[in-house]
Amino acid sequence: MPARFTLYYWPIPFRAQSIRYILAYAGETWSEPGREDVLALYQGPIAKQPMPFMGPPLLRDHQEDVWISQSCAIASYLGEVLHLTPGAPAKDALTQKVLGDCVDVLQALTRDCGATMWTAEEWTMFAEHRLPRWLQIFEELGARHDLKPGSGTLLGTPEPGVADLACAALWTPICDKLPKLQSVIAEHAPNVLALSQRLSNLAPIEALRAEQAERWGDVWCEGQIEESLRNVLASWRG
Amino acid sequence: MPARFTLYYWPIPFRAQSIRYILAYAGETWSEPGREDVLALYQGPIAKQPMPFMGPPLLRDHQEDVWISQSCAIASYLGEVLHLTPGAPAKDALTQKVLGDCVDVLQALTRDCGATMWTAEEWTMFAEHRLPRWLQIFEELGARHDLKPGSGTLLGTPEPGVADLACAALWTPICDKLPKLQSVIAEHAPNVLALSQRLSNLAPIEALRAEQAERWGDVWCEGQIEESLRNVLASWRG
Repeated sequence: MPARFTLYYWPIPFRAQSIRYILAYAGETWSEPGREDVLALYQGPIAKQPMPFMGPPLLRDHQEDVWISQSCAIASYLGEVLHLTPGAPAKDALTQKVLGDCVDVLQALTRDCGATMWTAEEWTMFAEHRLPRWLQIFEELGARHDLKPGSGTLLGTPEPGVADLACAALWTPICDKLPKLQSVIAEHAPNVLALSQRLSNLAPIEALRAEQAERWGDVWCEGQIEESLRNVLASWRG
Repeated sequence: MPARFTLYYWPIPFRAQSIRYILAYAGETWSEPGREDVLALYQGPIAKQPMPFMGPPLLRDHQEDVWISQSCAIASYLGEVLHLTPGAPAKDALTQKVLGDCVDVLQALTRDCGATMWTAEEWTMFAEHRLPRWLQIFEELGARHDLKPGSGTLLGTPEPGVADLACAALWTPICDKLPKLQSVIAEHAPNVLALSQRLSNLAPIEALRAEQAERWGDVWCEGQIEESLRNVLASWRG
């Protein structure tokens, strides 16, 4: 049977990893076309795009005949159709808040997807101030929703939902691919780290990570900005 | 009767204007504390924030005793509780896609909220390539949902929803405060411009705009990046 979903994204974790975590956790199948296919959609005329969009990820749900762009919109949609969002306005808003925060952290770590490169000085400032503050935001949100090491989830539901999976899909690839950052995460967000590890070690997500590691190696966001990030990390005292 | 909502944001349109358009259109009342109150929440310890957050806007719904951060999460929440979102997964996803696109346009125009300043050369490149492409994305999305000049709305519903209001709250302040950009918008997205003008001229939104203009003048995103944008616009041939 062909996969229900097609995910158009670059062969890297980054912005699409939350979508993959959600699909894997829900036991869904999906295909990911190669870079050439993503590029063709991305660079083609807007009028010919199946959904007018600026950049990937782009998701196709073959069953519902729907195309969606914007990673937060895709994650919310999957949460709804795969029953992984609370379905109550205030809690759905909290899920979307977490999704927005996750995107902002990726944006901050890559300086707006490589708009400028890291200098050692700017990195140190970021790593000592803004990054800890981001981590405290996640940790505090968890603390208010019964996040306990190894037990509860970020939003305190018995089963992980989209917010929990997105959180794990943000912090685990950072630990896996940029391991020098794990100690910062452990220091400022120990329970979020534990949650991320627990969810990332669930069988279907563990299988996804193993497959990606085999195919993609250590790539995180790729490009010059990943190189810049690795450069400042190498000489950073941590 | 005290207002149902409190909106914490800077005294500028920018990221919070979609929230204000939604509230005004729905006939809701809200208060906006001054800059000092917003700063106190923004800079205070995460553990003391009513909702852990990195930056405003932050909305409080007194009736439901809920705090929400992240502009897209706030707009979605308001759409749900004020009945301005479709309430079907694929259409809600489209609303969220539009919200995400609106944030990305603001991000692009301000170079990630002023992370770097505009140079004349980079501005020209942006204004001739990426900005038209963004406009085509909105226009094409509208074209696929029966957007017609002066009649339909962006997502083709008889009454404007969150996506339509967010779209108007993005493009109208740009036309109002940075008028040199109106011709670019008119060229690449004439129907989106017409929609934006029509919604922005509805009585409650027109009143909001008039009040803001009186209190805030021509400010759009404020700060050095607004100065930089105005500088490049002044010498740009348009």
